[in-house]
Amino acid sequence: MRILVEIEYQGNQFLGFQIQQQGRTVQQQFEKILKRMHKRHIRIHPSSRTDRGVHAYQQYFHFDTELQIENSKWQYAMNSALPDDIYVKSVQHVDEDFHCRYDCVGKRYRYKVYQAKHRDPFQSGLKTYIADSLDLNQMNEAAKRFIGTHDFTGFCSQKTEVESKVRTLYQSEIVKTDEGFDYIVTGSGFLYNMVRVLVAFLIEVGKGKRSPEEIPQLLEEKNRNKIPFTAPSEGLYLEKVYLSDKALIKDFGDEIKIHYKKSLQND
Amino acid sequence: MRILVEIEYQGNQFLGFQIQQQGRTVQQQFEKILKRMHKRHIRIHPSSRTDRGVHAYQQYFHFDTELQIENSKWQYAMNSALPDDIYVKSVQHVDEDFHCRYDCVGKRYRYKVYQAKHRDPFQSGLKTYIADSLDLNQMNEAAKRFIGTHDFTGFCSQKTEVESKVRTLYQSEIVKTDEGFDYIVTGSGFLYNMVRVLVAFLIEVGKGKRSPEEIPQLLEEKNRNKIPFTAPSEGLYLEKVYLSDKALIKDFGDEIKIHYKKSLQND
Repeated sequence: MRILVEIEYQGNQFLGFQIQQQGRTVQQQFEKILKRMHKRHIRIHPSSRTDRGVHAYQQYFHFDTELQIENSKWQYAMNSALPDDIYVKSVQHVDEDFHCRYDCVGKRYRYKVYQAKHRDPFQSGLKTYIADSLDLNQMNEAAKRFIGTHDFTGFCSQKTEVESKVRTLYQSEIVKTDEGFDYIVTGSGFLYNMVRVLVAFLIEVGKGKRSPEEIPQLLEEKNRNKIPFTAPSEGLYLEKVYLSDKALIKDFGDEIKIHYKKSLQND
Repeated sequence: MRILVEIEYQGNQFLGFQIQQQGRTVQQQFEKILKRMHKRHIRIHPSSRTDRGVHAYQQYFHFDTELQIENSKWQYAMNSALPDDIYVKSVQHVDEDFHCRYDCVGKRYRYKVYQAKHRDPFQSGLKTYIADSLDLNQMNEAAKRFIGTHDFTGFCSQKTEVESKVRTLYQSEIVKTDEGFDYIVTGSGFLYNMVRVLVAFLIEVGKGKRSPEEIPQLLEEKNRNKIPFTAPSEGLYLEKVYLSDKALIKDFGDEIKIHYKKSLQND
């Protein structure tokens, strides 16, 4: 049987999702619990491998089991054994051909920034601090230009190892908050560090150092050296994972009609 | 010259204030910076040695230096070198006979609890989670009975190594919040684990397992075994440190007239 698990976690104290030789990861926490229950190693498969320090309001993984356990009992068993910074929101049985990563058709990220005269230790790990005042209108102007299907080679880590760097963004906007702003971006998939590079570029726009007009050419040039910064991971939240076209069309039907082009679903 | 430094910190990622053989502490962060500036070890003396995981909205320490540096430049130098979870709020030169610990005449702590159907990973390390519904009125009733000068032997860690366990509380109350409640307690000084034992007892009162009427006898009996729980450190914030009688009288003049009795200022 294949089990689909919906979780949320605070990323502060994790080296990321993916298991590593040493150190605390989200995958490690779950595989430890599942090993205890199954008396053998059980591998879990997430929709997204979030990096060190990145949070998730919604994330999914699946695993296969022969254990006959009700959904609510799976949830209870896992939550009882998990540390405080991870929570299982729901559990369901799914078809054997469902796959968390291959069936993921879209994701939304939120990047949180607070602005203040000085930094606040109680936001440490949860929001990114920027002292400068920023032109949020200009930033939003720039953000919108990323909507659509583009080759994002210029806006991801140079370590990105995927064939195609074409991704489709359905939403890309700056929203003012009480303490600063959030950048909200929904897309078919994201390249390594892509959201953090987009944010870093938008902040440069907010400071008046870059302009929205440059974006078409930067996308064209595909040269990461033109966008030298990467925003820190602590403000980054995986907010929503779309596991079906239906859910994505419900939220972004109009944008999809204009822009949709099937692209590789790699991170 | 003696320098007085006012700081705040998020306690999550610290083993506490006091320096240890290994691991990250608040004292270690400052002494590392001061050593670099002085080319020799400089010891800092805090008003309170907060435990592992305990936060501070306000905390003080002092140190002696021969360096001729303006207050604002001390602040800037330290904040530039500190990690994100500590912040220097102010720096001032004080008399050589001022001592952060011996001149501390009172402290206020706040203990934060959130109540919800399930735990929230984003509160992890910042507030304590309680699923049960609690009778906050009964808890406040109990909290008020701790006001005054009492021997708190029954309400501290049995490891407490101080001569007198008599302390005076000026404020002890439960305040309802959007998500749960805060316990606010101001006193002449606090014994080891005292706030966390008081909170654990008040929560038992909230659940209907203990009653406010027991308190006079529990104080009389001085037997910690009668109060078996200690609340976790994560919800605990050192909120205010009183460094002069004047400041304390300003906030608690009336209570002090009734209750004030000079007691040892140990933690």
